[in-house]
Amino acid sequence: MLQTTDDQAMPLTKLHIPDTLDSRATQGLCTAVHRALVSTCGVPESDRFQLVTRYSPGSMLIDPHFPDVNRSDRTVIVEILFLTGRTDQQKRSLYQRIAEGAASCDFRADDLIVTLVENTRLDWSMGGGRAFADVGLH
Amino acid sequence: MLQTTDDQAMPLTKLHIPDTLDSRATQGLCTAVHRALVSTCGVPESDRFQLVTRYSPGSMLIDPHFPDVNRSDRTVIVEILFLTGRTDQQKRSLYQRIAEGAASCDFRADDLIVTLVENTRLDWSMGGGRAFADVGLH
Amino acid sequence: MLQTTDDQAMPLTKLHIPDTLDSRATQGLCTAVHRALVSTCGVPESDRFQLVTRYSPGSMLIDPHFPDVNRSDRTVIVEILFLTGRTDQQKRSLYQRIAEGAASCDFRADDLIVTLVENTRLDWSMGGGRAFADVGLH
Repeated sequence: MLQTTDDQAMPLTKLHIPDTLDSRATQGLCTAVHRALVSTCGVPESDRFQLVTRYSPGSMLIDPHFPDVNRSDRTVIVEILFLTGRTDQQKRSLYQRIAEGAASCDFRADDLIVTLVENTRLDWSMGGGRAFADVGLH
Repeated sequence: MLQTTDDQAMPLTKLHIPDTLDSRATQGLCTAVHRALVSTCGVPESDRFQLVTRYSPGSMLIDPHFPDVNRSDRTVIVEILFLTGRTDQQKRSLYQRIAEGAASCDFRADDLIVTLVENTRLDWSMGGGRAFADVGLH
Repeated sequence: MLQTTDDQAMPLTKLHIPDTLDSRATQGLCTAVHRALVSTCGVPESDRFQLVTRYSPGSMLIDPHFPDVNRSDRTVIVEILFLTGRTDQQKRSLYQRIAEGAASCDFRADDLIVTLVENTRLDWSMGGGRAFADVGLH
């Protein structure tokens, strides 16, 4: 049984993508986001939970420039829900690493919007009807 | 008019389900989640707000084992947004009760991931352009 | 470059709408929500990021009356994720202004559910692999 004594685990990532993105780019982006979480935020390699939702152009209204970037029609919004406790520096590194990883599947850094929401260990059940906070304790 | 002087109300539940789940299983799960909220977290019976989103296998990337479970291809992610104030014990009971209720429509406990996000009474308007915090006050 | 020294920016708005809503009503609602954010919460005019998801009737389970309203089958749920720091009064004004704006495209105030989730400036990257908190600082 995995010991989970730290607060590194549990991201749920939602990727909101334009429906014109092909499957290869989508998969590459999913992998880039997961690898960035693993390398900057201590997320276990096997702790991968990602939901991909596709939008038609009229259903994804995105300002092309705010606050100081140049977005294309390939812009993606990545929402990550994870445990509170990441430092400001970890978050900065996460954004940078996602952009670097996504570049390898031809995403421009300006086409990546990322936002984080935090909760606590008692706010997750990963299965078995048990709180994640209690995993490893019995 | 309903008096809402406590902090028991207002869950918004999102159910992320594989598109292979049939309608009966989906409805059964929705009902199980709502009943668990009512019985463990004091949610009023009529306070039911649920959104169901379906995913193709390639759009729902779920590790089969993390941290110590065995998931099938019927795994569901249940996100609940509700008012802060539930105790740790209420959250533990909620997870257990969802699993028990879902078992009656043939869901395995390991196929249920649940995550909670909290906000406050000022963070809801249930209609009429009014804050939920002000309902019953005028 | 835009100076972002305040905490007024960054809403991500998700609109959950019944799939029977026509395009004109949907666009009108999106505009009404954005205008309300601009006029009550200090959101910059160009800071518009909205995701629209459509649901079949069976996938959008909404109580018709809780807690004290009368909803029709046109009921919409608007989720706004934005920076912490809005006052209670700003939130109250936001709900009222959304309802007023939506009335101009024939939405009944009772058909509008709004919920807010908050995070911080370090929880956003708007592009370029940089934290939004660092925009304007280099």
